[in-house]
Amino acid sequence: MKEIKSVAALASRFSMLPGVGRKTALRYAYAVIDMTEDEVEAFRTALKDVKENVRLCSVCGNFTDGDVCDICAARPKKQICVVSYPKDVTAIEKTGAFDGVYHVLHGTLSPMNNRTPDDLNIKSLMSRLDGVDEVIIATNPDVEGEATAVYLARLIKPIGVKVTRIAQGISMGSELEYADSVTLSQALGRRTAL
Amino acid sequence: MKEIKSVAALASRFSMLPGVGRKTALRYAYAVIDMTEDEVEAFRTALKDVKENVRLCSVCGNFTDGDVCDICAARPKKQICVVSYPKDVTAIEKTGAFDGVYHVLHGTLSPMNNRTPDDLNIKSLMSRLDGVDEVIIATNPDVEGEATAVYLARLIKPIGVKVTRIAQGISMGSELEYADSVTLSQALGRRTAL
Repeated sequence: MKEIKSVAALASRFSMLPGVGRKTALRYAYAVIDMTEDEVEAFRTALKDVKENVRLCSVCGNFTDGDVCDICAARPKKQICVVSYPKDVTAIEKTGAFDGVYHVLHGTLSPMNNRTPDDLNIKSLMSRLDGVDEVIIATNPDVEGEATAVYLARLIKPIGVKVTRIAQGISMGSELEYADSVTLSQALGRRTAL
Repeated sequence: MKEIKSVAALASRFSMLPGVGRKTALRYAYAVIDMTEDEVEAFRTALKDVKENVRLCSVCGNFTDGDVCDICAARPKKQICVVSYPKDVTAIEKTGAFDGVYHVLHGTLSPMNNRTPDDLNIKSLMSRLDGVDEVIIATNPDVEGEATAVYLARLIKPIGVKVTRIAQGISMGSELEYADSVTLSQALGRRTAL
């Protein structure tokens, strides 16, 4: 069967979403056929609203629907937690363990992919360090995340602001047996007194 | 972080798609933020087009964007292959092994879920059996699919139309070792001469 043209067109839109292949996209498109007209209209409105209302916080670069995000507007600014992406803010907020503000880089340094410091939201980080006690770098513990952390530390420490890195080690609830050897050796190297 | 309202609203729309949980829906919603305005607009148009243009073929019940689908319009009508859902038509068409027409039931009989013959597209099947040589029942080989097949056979055979069922057995490329015992015993029972 030739795919119906409008179904194929919608599927090709769905396949632009992360991790959605041709088959899943087609499944989504067929599901839309089963929705009521009101549901489809609400879907279309939601798409429009997101594109129209969501922008980057002028202070921290996180997503917001105002000029300054709720976190920047309300929280003490002595500690800035630097993350790569907005989703990392969500992850840390879920822990409830941090009540300072964030700074979203929108990426990591990656010479392989031609991502230099100029491509990241770093300048605005440097411009908000006045009166800040500590910058906590919470990029991922992988090669790019580490490189970004080292770069930022070298940039910020000379200004006299304390720079820290989130701890690396064995995950809670995991088993030593299955830990990769880099993680395990770091967990040993960074052992703490009991 | 409170989710941004418009992002949460869009995520709740995505989560209406099959197999999309809260986390995936949120990931999709964030991906929309990264799309260009033109892409979002094309997405919205595609949603509208599907809802406006796609309907059920007045003959076979498959999705179409006309009154009668391309298959019903073009193919010989001596053989009707009965399937549960439009996606089953797609699967069979992909094989290229069938050049008759289809009939889509839009479901299977399921007393457990209160789906009776009246809920399926059966009446219109009965009304198109004139001049038909064979009805091939290609519902899934599970309890509901089998029940539906048996029901249809009892309904159609008295009219004098041949009713067949797609073969069940070991899948090509699979290993006996991993076949479930029902499939294996059916494959034995329905063995053919070489």
